[in-house]
Amino acid sequence: MIKDLTAFYSKDALNMKRSEIRELLKVTRRPDIISFAGGLPDPETFPVKDLEDISCQLLRDKGAIALQYGPTEGEAPLREEIAKWMSREKATIKPENILITVGSQQGLDIVSKIFLDPNDIVVMESPTYIGGLQAFSAYRANMMGVPQDDEGMRMDLLGKVLAKLAKRNKKPKFIYVVPDFQNPSGITMSLKRRKELLEMTYQYEVPILEDSPYRDLRFAGKAVPAIYSLDTQNQVIVLGTFSKLLCPGLRVAWMMAPAEWMDRMVVAKQSMDLCSPSYTQLMVAEYMRRGLLPRQIENIRQLYSRKLEVMLEALKEHMPKGVKWSKPKGGLFLWIELPKKMSANDLFPRAIENKVAYVVGSAFHCNGKGQNTMRINFSFPSEQQIVEGIQRLAKMLKENM
Amino acid sequence: MIKDLTAFYSKDALNMKRSEIRELLKVTRRPDIISFAGGLPDPETFPVKDLEDISCQLLRDKGAIALQYGPTEGEAPLREEIAKWMSREKATIKPENILITVGSQQGLDIVSKIFLDPNDIVVMESPTYIGGLQAFSAYRANMMGVPQDDEGMRMDLLGKVLAKLAKRNKKPKFIYVVPDFQNPSGITMSLKRRKELLEMTYQYEVPILEDSPYRDLRFAGKAVPAIYSLDTQNQVIVLGTFSKLLCPGLRVAWMMAPAEWMDRMVVAKQSMDLCSPSYTQLMVAEYMRRGLLPRQIENIRQLYSRKLEVMLEALKEHMPKGVKWSKPKGGLFLWIELPKKMSANDLFPRAIENKVAYVVGSAFHCNGKGQNTMRINFSFPSEQQIVEGIQRLAKMLKENM
Repeated sequence: MIKDLTAFYSKDALNMKRSEIRELLKVTRRPDIISFAGGLPDPETFPVKDLEDISCQLLRDKGAIALQYGPTEGEAPLREEIAKWMSREKATIKPENILITVGSQQGLDIVSKIFLDPNDIVVMESPTYIGGLQAFSAYRANMMGVPQDDEGMRMDLLGKVLAKLAKRNKKPKFIYVVPDFQNPSGITMSLKRRKELLEMTYQYEVPILEDSPYRDLRFAGKAVPAIYSLDTQNQVIVLGTFSKLLCPGLRVAWMMAPAEWMDRMVVAKQSMDLCSPSYTQLMVAEYMRRGLLPRQIENIRQLYSRKLEVMLEALKEHMPKGVKWSKPKGGLFLWIELPKKMSANDLFPRAIENKVAYVVGSAFHCNGKGQNTMRINFSFPSEQQIVEGIQRLAKMLKENM
Repeated sequence: MIKDLTAFYSKDALNMKRSEIRELLKVTRRPDIISFAGGLPDPETFPVKDLEDISCQLLRDKGAIALQYGPTEGEAPLREEIAKWMSREKATIKPENILITVGSQQGLDIVSKIFLDPNDIVVMESPTYIGGLQAFSAYRANMMGVPQDDEGMRMDLLGKVLAKLAKRNKKPKFIYVVPDFQNPSGITMSLKRRKELLEMTYQYEVPILEDSPYRDLRFAGKAVPAIYSLDTQNQVIVLGTFSKLLCPGLRVAWMMAPAEWMDRMVVAKQSMDLCSPSYTQLMVAEYMRRGLLPRQIENIRQLYSRKLEVMLEALKEHMPKGVKWSKPKGGLFLWIELPKKMSANDLFPRAIENKVAYVVGSAFHCNGKGQNTMRINFSFPSEQQIVEGIQRLAKMLKENM
């Protein structure tokens, strides 16, 4: 029997952190708890009937292909459909720029694998997506957070970070941004900031990783152009996913990258899983080919928009003074700020006692900040649960103020 | 525009190798070429009708679960079915020991991620599975190959390697073996060797990684006990897969590991892809629950066994003197040895000219050896193609002797 297990672990493994969210989800699955902690889509939106029809046809007509190994890059019909989808925003995108991944998380892992040595710098919004933090920290990156305001990442502060690094002859391997309805904050980066970001990365020659799972879930107003659509220098890698537009259970997502980067990404994916499931890829390709995606997205928008409205109403009615929250125009989450001296971390057990759950904001910070913040989700709970849950949360906060 | 791309790549990325097989496959997809190069199952064996029935029922009855995010560890019903399946050989295996992966390749990636720092030692059979070489080299492991004979890895030589390392206060992070119908050699490790291997790893306290995709595809004779079933010290991690038993396109595979290792493996998988597709996992779980797997395996055995027979006949009839080949009792591959001074690498273009393809044996060696060897596959080509392909190959070899 091996006694000292840690002697076998790699330095990466010793540095890994469990996702606090995924651990929390276990507690919050208790049926008596109203959970705003998850980030799950509403299963009401899953197009079960269409997928049933597609899967049967696929097995009947193309079983020998759908059940066989496929190319590492992904199934050709799906890469074509995605390239077409993305070229609505930028005409030059071709199937050769698309690599199919198992969730966007695999995209994060691939980018980390090909770019990051230990202590390499990644600059990101603070707070940022927890899956990004997890992927980068699994490669022992040096993560530097740049604060946001209502317009997104503060470019004045980013400029200072990059200039300071340049003085020491250093630069980040890439800048990670979630520019649309950011998880966790709900903030969308303004057009002005997007342009400034691009200019700055041209000046310093730093790639941008644009992670955009919620972009198409806009409830109101006009879309801000995607960063990649503004890019003239081939410096933007994009992560896209069907998890929030169709359903997460097929785990079909993609990376869009300039052709020069693609080769290493494919080799990395080869060593990781050979290829994604042909079957689920071809299902999604057929779903897109049939032109069903736009209507599906419209359905989701309407449902989530209504839920968000209900949540904003409930917050306005019940929250004590001193508590602030974001008013996102899309996505799945909003962000709550408690008065500075309150700690969402300390209050978490009381929330559970009150049968309501959230994710502590500090989990989204690469530097332990954000103790007075929390992320709450409005896509999964029902309207009734939203009203009841916000009441429970407000009551708990009032009792502890 | 970024000029020097290589300045951005991690040391891992710079060290990655494209799979020679996957590159070869592109050439060998030409319809006029008879390819023995791939490792694809025969699509005739895919149980399309059963899977169609299962997928429709699954979407109808459990769409909200099958299309949603699932646990990182894998779907509970599948972990239970696999634990039951594996406990035919060792009663103590529980669902808690099972982690679902996207292909066995992801299992190789996870084990590499949690165990390997650059230059860490991995000992393996020589030749060995190319996907293992790829996974380990993506973490810059120091790979040491131990030659095999008809009984598998030479334990006398392994003993010398381990003793030599111990003298320098070193040991491997793990020993990688493919004990049943090994890819590429077709060799099965004898019971005596398996016991010796375990004894040696107990003495030196080294884990074993038992990669076993072909174990159930035995055409004749009695199975040798799996290494994990003989292990009394909890030192064996197993990789299993449905790719060769059911179909590869669902990408459902698993790792079995002692509970102490499981936690890190799950955290690693979280950072890699959050979770495997719920949908394909639940399809396989239902397939197993219905008891369909044993009959399916029997069908595959009969088909491949016949194809192997045809190939052995054709080899006997057509191959020139001096060419030797293995006579495996299962699996998908056999191994050809040319006279020492011939090079399968140099002959490859001539084979393509003669419209037949194989994989050069050197691709399976961690040390560039095996120039006079090749791997040929008998599961994918039809019987007619096997006869015709072996004739072409024999003709080419005769012309170049």
